[in-house]
This record gives sequence, structure tokens and C-alpha cells, in this order.
Amino acid sequence: MSSEKLILAINAGSSSVKLSLYSSTSPPGPGDALAPKLILESSISSLTSPPAVFKYTHASPSSSSSNVDSEQLPDIKSQENAFKHFLDCLFSDSELKQVCSGEDIAFACHRIVHGGDFDKPIVLGEESLDHLKELTDLAPLHNAPALSLVYTTFKHLPTTKNIAFFDTTFHTLSLPEHIRTYPLDPDHARQHKIRKYGFHGISYAFIVREVAAYLNKPIEETNIIALHLGSGASACAICNGKSIDTSMGLTPLEGLPGATRSGTVDPSLVFHYTTHASNLTQDDPHISKAEEILNKHSGWASLTGTPDFAALTSPSPPPNAALAFALFVDRITNLVAAYFVKLRGQVDALVFAGGVGERSWQLREAVVDAVACLGFEVRREDNKGVSERREVVAAVGGGSGCAEVLVCRTDEAREMARGCVVERRFWGDM
Amino acid sequence: MSSEKLILAINAGSSSVKLSLYSSTSPPGPGDALAPKLILESSISSLTSPPAVFKYTHASPSSSSSNVDSEQLPDIKSQENAFKHFLDCLFSDSELKQVCSGEDIAFACHRIVHGGDFDKPIVLGEESLDHLKELTDLAPLHNAPALSLVYTTFKHLPTTKNIAFFDTTFHTLSLPEHIRTYPLDPDHARQHKIRKYGFHGISYAFIVREVAAYLNKPIEETNIIALHLGSGASACAICNGKSIDTSMGLTPLEGLPGATRSGTVDPSLVFHYTTHASNLTQDDPHISKAEEILNKHSGWASLTGTPDFAALTSPSPPPNAALAFALFVDRITNLVAAYFVKLRGQVDALVFAGGVGERSWQLREAVVDAVACLGFEVRREDNKGVSERREVVAAVGGGSGCAEVLVCRTDEAREMARGCVVERRFWGDM
Repeated sequence: MSSEKLILAINAGSSSVKLSLYSSTSPPGPGDALAPKLILESSISSLTSPPAVFKYTHASPSSSSSNVDSEQLPDIKSQENAFKHFLDCLFSDSELKQVCSGEDIAFACHRIVHGGDFDKPIVLGEESLDHLKELTDLAPLHNAPALSLVYTTFKHLPTTKNIAFFDTTFHTLSLPEHIRTYPLDPDHARQHKIRKYGFHGISYAFIVREVAAYLNKPIEETNIIALHLGSGASACAICNGKSIDTSMGLTPLEGLPGATRSGTVDPSLVFHYTTHASNLTQDDPHISKAEEILNKHSGWASLTGTPDFAALTSPSPPPNAALAFALFVDRITNLVAAYFVKLRGQVDALVFAGGVGERSWQLREAVVDAVACLGFEVRREDNKGVSERREVVAAVGGGSGCAEVLVCRTDEAREMARGCVVERRFWGDM
Repeated sequence: MSSEKLILAINAGSSSVKLSLYSSTSPPGPGDALAPKLILESSISSLTSPPAVFKYTHASPSSSSSNVDSEQLPDIKSQENAFKHFLDCLFSDSELKQVCSGEDIAFACHRIVHGGDFDKPIVLGEESLDHLKELTDLAPLHNAPALSLVYTTFKHLPTTKNIAFFDTTFHTLSLPEHIRTYPLDPDHARQHKIRKYGFHGISYAFIVREVAAYLNKPIEETNIIALHLGSGASACAICNGKSIDTSMGLTPLEGLPGATRSGTVDPSLVFHYTTHASNLTQDDPHISKAEEILNKHSGWASLTGTPDFAALTSPSPPPNAALAFALFVDRITNLVAAYFVKLRGQVDALVFAGGVGERSWQLREAVVDAVACLGFEVRREDNKGVSERREVVAAVGGGSGCAEVLVCRTDEAREMARGCVVERRFWGDM
């Protein structure tokens, strides 16, 4: 029971696959688990705008001889081929004696965006896959890439146990009824599974644990306002370690704008966007044209021409950069204010995470300045310097008497690997 | 120039017409205006669920002999017939010597929901009507009833000057660019006139003036969070007398739920509601089925079975009453918190208005309690007693050092009549 197991964490996006390999030396004892140890990270990106770019990096500097830094792979255009290429590298990696074939990988963890009513990670078998396929009808735009990689893993790693982790799970049971309910016909809503689900939950689970540890508080007594800000962005009010409200809804479209997502707009807007807004797209019979526009052709990229948030605060910004920046800050600020009140002002920390949250000191400064009347304060130099530091959690503001302002390097792959280790049920029949 | 003029304020809903007759003895001097004096109020309701009900009430108790209290009119089923019935009563009213025919009515003020880019009230002529018809394409559900009564007035009061007041005007120029902008392709947005307009502006203009007077402050220095809560509900952050954010958007659907309106929902939701969500309704080729559901078959009525908010806190509440109440309080609280921060905590008053805001002490108490951590406080007995009082503005909480909590009996008809009096340009060519 207590041998080393390898865990592969897989995060499939619409044009990329990210892979992280961990080892864990034992199943957990009754207390806490041994942290999974990162062996290597890899990514294949630009699948939809070839050539694909391959990266492969050992965690240990002493094994760096087999690293690959941004290799172009013009022949790789699908996620399946990308995954196969990664496995070929892995199995032939002379620095990795413990991995020779698929049989050496005990677990594959899949990040699945929409988990419907699932309130915990599940082992993927035929039955659960059927259920997942139903969920894909609920969120075709968001679940399809991950599902495709589940099938690929079944094929190429037939002895590996596949586990699905959902972005919704963190919110499933804890969102109060009046938060998860839309004011619509309840029978219809039940029948069509219409409720606020919330997303980014794998990240929020990681954030609240790491922040509680940083604050030296039990998770069950930790109140934070967490902001996962990246090309997809959301906020979460976490009370006593649990999600009590979050900005994404039935799908990840609701709430904050993202790089190419509109976020919340007037629900009537879709009917004004084009008279054929609801025509189905040619590519996918489940996705309407308007849904595609609001998910893929909106957000700050639609205002400025670039999905790269850092460009908005660069010395030569694109057109509308100041507008897009101010708009994003405003919508974030609205949520911080609302969640502060929802937590009755008892907030341990305001936490910035995600690609934009971790890297844009300008955004953090603007948001914290905007909520100064709630007692938040940023330390300007600490805030500017944080990107160069290596800690998982770093303080950039707050302190004596008022809430901390923190940056957390969130890590969904590690959170999934940890989930594999702590959930004893996954190890039971191995 | 300085004779008495009669002003008829008309507020047309989808199943009712409300009419208020005012007199004003002079056009305004350069300072402030003489307040228009209310002569009588009338309403015809239940037009879409006959029999229609007619009310006709003189403001002066000494003229009450011609009052009509809830007369059923089974033959009246259209707004035009309702209006005609009102005029017949008016012209034959023995208590009203000064009104014998349409020629005695100088102005008819029409409340029009969607005013597009109009930044002030306009005199209705052929050209402006054409422009208004275009706006009706932007908001068919909301502008159609008022437009129909404009034509009726043209026909039955051919010598009266018709003036359109818009619910959007209060927000048109003052909403900052990053607030009025949706993160969408800017060219497309411009072309299709897609922006946040905001509504309930006639009410907000009334509220901010009355509250500033109550607080004894110049309007230009008055900061309030105003809540217009009725079967349609919205919030407005008013900084130095001007709207800097509001919860309704391109149409009145965005933001807070209402009696039958969903308010903000995931923009993807319309595509999940029914596979034929965007099919057009039979009644009106401009309105999709989903738009109709979200506007007319959602809100607290869809959860509880009743559009009557008071029923939710009655001794024998309908099913889901507590859920619907908590949901409404939560969504209002989110906005109060966001607007508090937007005003940098410099808030003179939190103001409740509208049918629900003025009448439900339970709602006011719940909202103010929810934002207690921002320093707001309700005086429970004052708050319960306010419905019986007659002042336009009454204090129900707050006081020394913290923001006031006020109830304002908003009056859109009076605001329009006042607009007729103060806008010298309307009197110029008479």
C-alpha cells in the first residue's frame, strides 16, 4: 500500500494542454497528507494557431539535460497528438528511470470545468463518462477539450486510474439556496439544471488552504475574498473556508469580463447583437453564434485588440487600454465590496491569484486603492516587487488591525495531485 | 406669458394608464420654479385582465364630489379607450371649471422608458416620433405602451404640446465611459447602440432633489445610494447629484430582479432555457420567447406564484417566500456595497423609494441590517411607522456621523410636470 505512485495532472484548454507529473510516496495517514512532489511540467500550446509550441521542464535543476524550451512542432495539431508526443518524451526520458511505460503512471487527474451537481472528484468509468457527456450539453464550450483528453488517456494509458476534478465542486454544497437560485420558474430550472454553479473551484480550494496556512489559522475559521484573475476571471467570498458566493454562474460566462469573455451583460443584449444571434455555429451544433461571440470575441481583447492584459499597462498601450483597465478594475471592485459586506466586514485577507492577479501590480494597486474606504491598503513597493518572489503566498498590503492583502500563486495541478493523495478511496483498490 | 397652464402627466404601462393633472401659474424665473399644483389623479388598470378598473381622485378634499373610487369598466380594453374615458370625465367634471375641452390642456407629458441617446426631454413632433420609433426597436417590450398613448394624445388633444420624458435621461451624459461600456466589439456596439443606458431616471431626478432639500445641501454636493424598488427595481449611485452607476443596462432587464423580471442572469442562460429560446413570439415579431420569459415570467412571481411583494412577508406567505425575499435582499445588498465603495464611503443617505421600497419595512430592515458593517443603521420603530406618514422624505435610520437612511415617496408624474415648468424652451412659442 505504501509504495511510490506517479500522478499525472492534465489541464486541457481549447488550444493547449498542460501536464504536470508528481510522485507521492504513500497514501495519507488519518491526519494530513504528504505533499505530492513535482517531477516535471510540460505544455503544448498554440494548437489552434500552428505551429504548436512544446515545453518540457524538470522540477529538479539536476535533471535539466532533457528539458525542452519552446520547441516548434508543426505536425502536431490535435490534443491527442500533443498528448502522445508528451508521452513519447516522458517514456524515453533518460533522467526519469521510474517512468518507462503507461503502467508506471498510477493516476491521471483531469481538470473538468463543469461538474454539474458532483460534489467531489470522481473516478472516471463508463457510467460516470455518460454522466459527464450530459454535462457537456450544459457547457459544450468549456467541457469538450477536457473530455477529449479523457478519451485520449483511456486509449494511451489503459492501466491508469482516471480521476475527474471539477471547477464547480468547491461551490456545489456550500452556496446558500438564495445565492445559487436564479429567479426563474423553479420547475423549469430544476429540469434544465439551471443554477449558479460557480467555477475556478480547484484554484479556490488551493488558495484557501495556502492562505489559511500563511495566516496560521484553521481553514474552518478563515474568511477571504479570493480573486482568480486570468484570461477567465472570477471572485469568491469564502466564509469559514467555504464558498458562500462567487461571480461565475450557470457557466463561466457570468460575472467578470475576461480576455475574450464579456462577463455579465444585460440578458437582452444577445438579442440585440445580431438578428441571427441564436443561429447555431457551423463548428458545433450546440453553440449559438451569440454564445460564441460573448465567450470568444468579447472581453478586453475586443476593446483593445489584444488578449494580453500586461499590454494594457505597458509603455505603448493599445487603443482603449485605459478604458479596458478601468472597466476591469470597476467590475472587480464591485465584487470585492459586495463580498466584504457578505462577510460582515470580517475579512482575513483579500487575495489576488491567477495569471493577471499574480503578475499585474498595476491592477492590484488600482483595486486596493478603489476599496480603500473599506480599510484595505496596499504597500506600493511590496506590491511591485512581488512578481519576482518565489513564495506561494506573499503579503502586499494590510496588516495591523485591517485585512491582509495577499498574492497567491495558485496551482490547480498541485491541487489535483494533492486530491489524489488525500482521497483514500482512490487508493483503496490499487 | 404668465397665465395659468394645465399640465397632464401620462404614465402608460402594459396594462394600465396613470394620469395626473397639474396647474402651473407661471413659467419659471431664473432661480427656481413655482411647484406645479396637483389638481387630480386618475388611473385605469387591469386593461389586460378585464374588467378595467377606473379611479379618479381630486387632490382637494373640497372637490371630492366628482371622485370615482374603483369603478369597473367592462367595455374598456385598450389604452386609447381608457384615455378617452378619462377625458370624458375630465371635460364634464363640474368641479373643474377651468377644463372644458382639450384646448385647455397646454402640455401632455409622456413617460417613455427608453430614450436612447436623448439627454433631455423633447417636444414630440413628426421628426422626433420617427426617432422614437427607432428606439422602440431597441426596447419593444418597454416603449410600445407609451408610444401608443402618444398617438392617442395627438388624436384626442390636437392642440396640446406633447413632451417626452425619458427614464434614461438622468444617466445619459453622466455615466463614465468605463461604466456605460460593455466589453464587446466597440464598432458593433456603436452601430447597434449597445451601451448601459440605465432607467428609472425620472424617479432618481425627483429623489435626489427632494433628498438634497431634506438634507439642506445643494444637489451638486449630494451623494446618495438610491434604490427604486418596485415591480421593476434598480439602484443608482449618485455622486454630486449625478448618476455615476446604475443597475439597469441596455434595457431594464439587467440588474435587480423584479416582480416578473429575472434581472441579471448568466448571459448563456437564455440558450439553456429552451432550445427554441430565440424563436420569436407570436404576438410581437420583435420579441423573442426567451426575452419574454425573462421579462414577464421570472422574478419573485415565478418563485412564489405572486407578483405582490407584500405577500412574501405576510402571516401566511406563499411557497418559496423566504427564498425570494432573501434573494432580493442579497442582490440589493450587493449593489449598496458596490455603490458605497464607488462613492468612496462619502454617502449622505441610503434612500428607499418605489412601491416596495416605500411600503416594505421588512425589506428596508433586512437590507440595512445586511450593510451594518458599512455603518448604516435602521431605527426599527421609525422604519415600521413610516408608511403611515405623509412626508415626501422621512428618516428611518442613520444620523450622527453616519449616513442617513431615508424613505422617499417618489413621484414621476410630479417630476415631469415640474420639468414642463422649469424648461423655459417649452413655453417659448406658446
